[in-house]
Amino acid sequence: MTMKIGFVGLGAMGLPMAMNLVKGGHDVTGFDLSADALAELEKAGGTAGASGAAAAEGADLVVTMLPKAEHVEAAIFGETGILEGAGAETVLVNMSTILPEETDAISARLAGRMAMVDAPVGRSALEAKRGALLILASGSEADKEKARPAFECMGNETIDCGAIGNGSRVKIINNFMGVSLNALTAEALTLAEASGLDIRLALDVMRGTIAGIGHMKVTYPNKVLKGDLLAGFPSDLAHKDLGLAIRLAESTNVPTYMGAAALQTYSIVRAEGRGRQDYTAVYPTLRGLAGLPEAIPYDASGDEEYDPFKKD
Amino acid sequence: MTMKIGFVGLGAMGLPMAMNLVKGGHDVTGFDLSADALAELEKAGGTAGASGAAAAEGADLVVTMLPKAEHVEAAIFGETGILEGAGAETVLVNMSTILPEETDAISARLAGRMAMVDAPVGRSALEAKRGALLILASGSEADKEKARPAFECMGNETIDCGAIGNGSRVKIINNFMGVSLNALTAEALTLAEASGLDIRLALDVMRGTIAGIGHMKVTYPNKVLKGDLLAGFPSDLAHKDLGLAIRLAESTNVPTYMGAAALQTYSIVRAEGRGRQDYTAVYPTLRGLAGLPEAIPYDASGDEEYDPFKKD
Amino acid sequence: MTMKIGFVGLGAMGLPMAMNLVKGGHDVTGFDLSADALAELEKAGGTAGASGAAAAEGADLVVTMLPKAEHVEAAIFGETGILEGAGAETVLVNMSTILPEETDAISARLAGRMAMVDAPVGRSALEAKRGALLILASGSEADKEKARPAFECMGNETIDCGAIGNGSRVKIINNFMGVSLNALTAEALTLAEASGLDIRLALDVMRGTIAGIGHMKVTYPNKVLKGDLLAGFPSDLAHKDLGLAIRLAESTNVPTYMGAAALQTYSIVRAEGRGRQDYTAVYPTLRGLAGLPEAIPYDASGDEEYDPFKKD
Amino acid sequence: MTMKIGFVGLGAMGLPMAMNLVKGGHDVTGFDLSADALAELEKAGGTAGASGAAAAEGADLVVTMLPKAEHVEAAIFGETGILEGAGAETVLVNMSTILPEETDAISARLAGRMAMVDAPVGRSALEAKRGALLILASGSEADKEKARPAFECMGNETIDCGAIGNGSRVKIINNFMGVSLNALTAEALTLAEASGLDIRLALDVMRGTIAGIGHMKVTYPNKVLKGDLLAGFPSDLAHKDLGLAIRLAESTNVPTYMGAAALQTYSIVRAEGRGRQDYTAVYPTLRGLAGLPEAIPYDASGDEEYDPFKKD
Repeated sequence: MTMKIGFVGLGAMGLPMAMNLVKGGHDVTGFDLSADALAELEKAGGTAGASGAAAAEGADLVVTMLPKAEHVEAAIFGETGILEGAGAETVLVNMSTILPEETDAISARLAGRMAMVDAPVGRSALEAKRGALLILASGSEADKEKARPAFECMGNETIDCGAIGNGSRVKIINNFMGVSLNALTAEALTLAEASGLDIRLALDVMRGTIAGIGHMKVTYPNKVLKGDLLAGFPSDLAHKDLGLAIRLAESTNVPTYMGAAALQTYSIVRAEGRGRQDYTAVYPTLRGLAGLPEAIPYDASGDEEYDPFKKD
Repeated sequence: MTMKIGFVGLGAMGLPMAMNLVKGGHDVTGFDLSADALAELEKAGGTAGASGAAAAEGADLVVTMLPKAEHVEAAIFGETGILEGAGAETVLVNMSTILPEETDAISARLAGRMAMVDAPVGRSALEAKRGALLILASGSEADKEKARPAFECMGNETIDCGAIGNGSRVKIINNFMGVSLNALTAEALTLAEASGLDIRLALDVMRGTIAGIGHMKVTYPNKVLKGDLLAGFPSDLAHKDLGLAIRLAESTNVPTYMGAAALQTYSIVRAEGRGRQDYTAVYPTLRGLAGLPEAIPYDASGDEEYDPFKKD
Repeated sequence: MTMKIGFVGLGAMGLPMAMNLVKGGHDVTGFDLSADALAELEKAGGTAGASGAAAAEGADLVVTMLPKAEHVEAAIFGETGILEGAGAETVLVNMSTILPEETDAISARLAGRMAMVDAPVGRSALEAKRGALLILASGSEADKEKARPAFECMGNETIDCGAIGNGSRVKIINNFMGVSLNALTAEALTLAEASGLDIRLALDVMRGTIAGIGHMKVTYPNKVLKGDLLAGFPSDLAHKDLGLAIRLAESTNVPTYMGAAALQTYSIVRAEGRGRQDYTAVYPTLRGLAGLPEAIPYDASGDEEYDPFKKD
Repeated sequence: MTMKIGFVGLGAMGLPMAMNLVKGGHDVTGFDLSADALAELEKAGGTAGASGAAAAEGADLVVTMLPKAEHVEAAIFGETGILEGAGAETVLVNMSTILPEETDAISARLAGRMAMVDAPVGRSALEAKRGALLILASGSEADKEKARPAFECMGNETIDCGAIGNGSRVKIINNFMGVSLNALTAEALTLAEASGLDIRLALDVMRGTIAGIGHMKVTYPNKVLKGDLLAGFPSDLAHKDLGLAIRLAESTNVPTYMGAAALQTYSIVRAEGRGRQDYTAVYPTLRGLAGLPEAIPYDASGDEEYDPFKKD
């Protein structure tokens, strides 16, 4: 089913997304301050709008893909903004990455005036071009359903994140992890090289252990999330081994800020008397530091056992 | 082929390893200060030795699995130690996790007196019991070959790490990454929960992105290790998104020491003028901080392209 | 000389400040959302205003002392805000702590409509009550001069910080240092106690060394700021000693996140080849990481020699 | 009273210390592997010994000033080491900086064979030359008394640290603080400059506040150490202000690893419900993280009130 779609924000991500909507058969009117971007959209078969209001005129959906919350707010509520053009049935689909509380504030301000879906994206400009984004959709069932055909043009995977605001939340958490992990990976590989190791060997080994596979698929569901803290690998040993690594870093002048911070956290784990517990005890320890209640709100029943190290 | 094997250090890891050697048909003489551990070994069909020397008497291999370098040294060089019992053909196989420089020192001290293989293990007591350890073998080809049948009893995967000392090096790096990653994972999940997100949703999303898949299989081989820093995801954006997450952590009182440290590293990336480069530029930046030469000693030719996000 | 002064924001800091203005003989009209605060001001001899505009009516100065930039903006530009009541001669004196860029934005928005002094305060509520604040005044000479009698009622020290915006900048830097130093002090004292030391002894020793005296009065002016990096205390040794301390912390389970981060920075200092330079070389190293040009923009001529360790 | 003193370790610190002993009228026999250092000592009026044993022959005191614990051990217990030359009355005075547990081990190994004083020094090579070291003396009363005349030649201040091992402990803590504080100072000044501030202005302001004066003389004795956590400056505000600074650092690409770590610690303070307490509550919070008992073992009675901000 073809829709009329407004698209505000035709940058590195927005332009290819809008073009994929055009390619998907939708009638797309874009708006951006860059005349070049508008021209590109037109060349691809879209329409150049003169304002957010113009892009919203008669639209089923208006997508916003902008750098910051203040831009999103201006695009919606400003003069000749989206609200001025939108109709009673128009759904705003904000795909920009902004703070959850900013999403909540915009959604509250829109209440009763325009329906809103909060749907930031995972992955990068490369996937935007290929229509292979991961879309983190949150909002009412009806609104998400309405936006679904558009999502299918822009991404190859949509995760239903529930009520509005959850999309923004999970996006931020996801990027927290992916971006930080990048820096941690750089620390490990730099330490490997500085201590005289072949990079490829280091990678080959780590890809076959928790170091490369990660904890989310293995240790967490098999241990701490099941409430099992019997030591597979005890915190005391994790603390000891990380201490050895930090000493190696010290003697090779490799700055391992993240690893050194992790070591301190294991010291807290031990000070709490969890030294003989499994090293995933670092998770309840950290939850405690953040003042969260003791019981982890996670129901593990139904999770399958998963053994990443089984060799056939 | 059955071997005569001495085994010094029958703790949480060592005992099941020794028992797997017995089960594999080898003639195993153990030594440990714990009479209980020796009794358990005997019950399983091994022999209790009275000293390291006794365990080494006539042995093809002597395995050491001890907490610290000083214990390994005492076991080898001390009174009634391994050296006193070992023959001309005996190979020492140290599987304890100790510092690379400690391995180097022991190996140097043994030179001309006993051959040595440095073969620490990955994974934990659980895998030790199941004979499913990852063994990181380093030493001369002949010595590693001699130890191979023993490794096959204790582990289900042996990685040849080259010359002696490399096993210790890669073990430490591997644990640096796995143990630190655990603490980072705890930060991400705590932040998710504190910001009102369902833990399962956070896990589900992250398992499908770089956050859960890791950089070693995806971004590094596809970008920075190939010398390609064209932005898939630019450092500027990584810095911005991580900043949003840190602000969310600040407002929910979640201590994210590692994430906050990562943010500082991206500030350095930007200060170096790499803001528009791919965020894997954090790796050359960190290498530079450690004083490593600019060219990354890695030959990417032959690496396959890998697209973890392809959906069929 | 008595002035007519409006005061918007009568919280823990603002109320005692306003009361000290009354005590100093000024005619003060306050405004706050809290009726209690207004009543207290009246009891002390001030006037309760009905709005920011009312407080500004006919005023020589209007002081704002509010939690965040958005409150300051609302107080000035909002309905019945300060701008509506202010006359051609009224000077706005913002004493709230907000971001420098927020100060710059407000000042730009006020240009041509009302003069502004940016004058955040150092120290705390205790000093606010005693009229002993440190006032960091920035703005035009004439405007600062006009505000001077008010500053003298509220503080016992005013530092002229030059052009507008500098007050906010220096306030933030000052608090960055004072607040972080508090956490570092806690790390040192906790480590002292955990390693079996008497707290008083630790304090007595540190109060007589750089640890307690600080670098700003001693090492920086005597070494790095004079361009002298000849080692008084070489970076290599600083790195070594800090490494010993971190190991002590590790063995006593004391989390020393800040000390551990500092150690990494010294690793970078060493990787840069500055190991034999004085340990104040950490400053040029850090400046380099931030992308600042090599020459430190500081003219040391005229600085006196200062020897804090001289005993008579 | 003139003594016969052996001195082992004539490096950057040791040589000037030994020369000050000569200048003080003592009969000094030095030993070092560097012939140059020995020649310098002779030129100054000392004697070049052929070994540690030779330096110890007939000596009242033998001072050791060496880089690492292993060197100290070798100097004492090795072949032709100090023990071989020392008499029944000789006191070993170790002034090297080594780990407390290393000091404890050496002292235990010496028990019944030679008396020992543990007396590391504060300050640097500059002060060593001027005889202005700070000496942190620990050991038995009689042994410290015997060493006193030597200390008076080498330093201008000796702090009695009580029983043996305390000197090493307090030295490490002192350097932890002084060395880390240096890196924190560099962060603050770099942030000041990057945000457009004049360095001299930043220094002038900070020297007059807690930022430059430090917490050990002011906030700790006046607040938390007296058991008073009524907010002079509440933790919530410290957290907010530090957050502003971190954001400023983020926007100017200044890496503030230590400040960012401090912010996380204040998040824990808040999560513990201490947001309205004085920001020195960071100290009991950190003590708790390290597993120390709640009551701070410090008796504040007798401490004077101190107001660093009083202006006459």
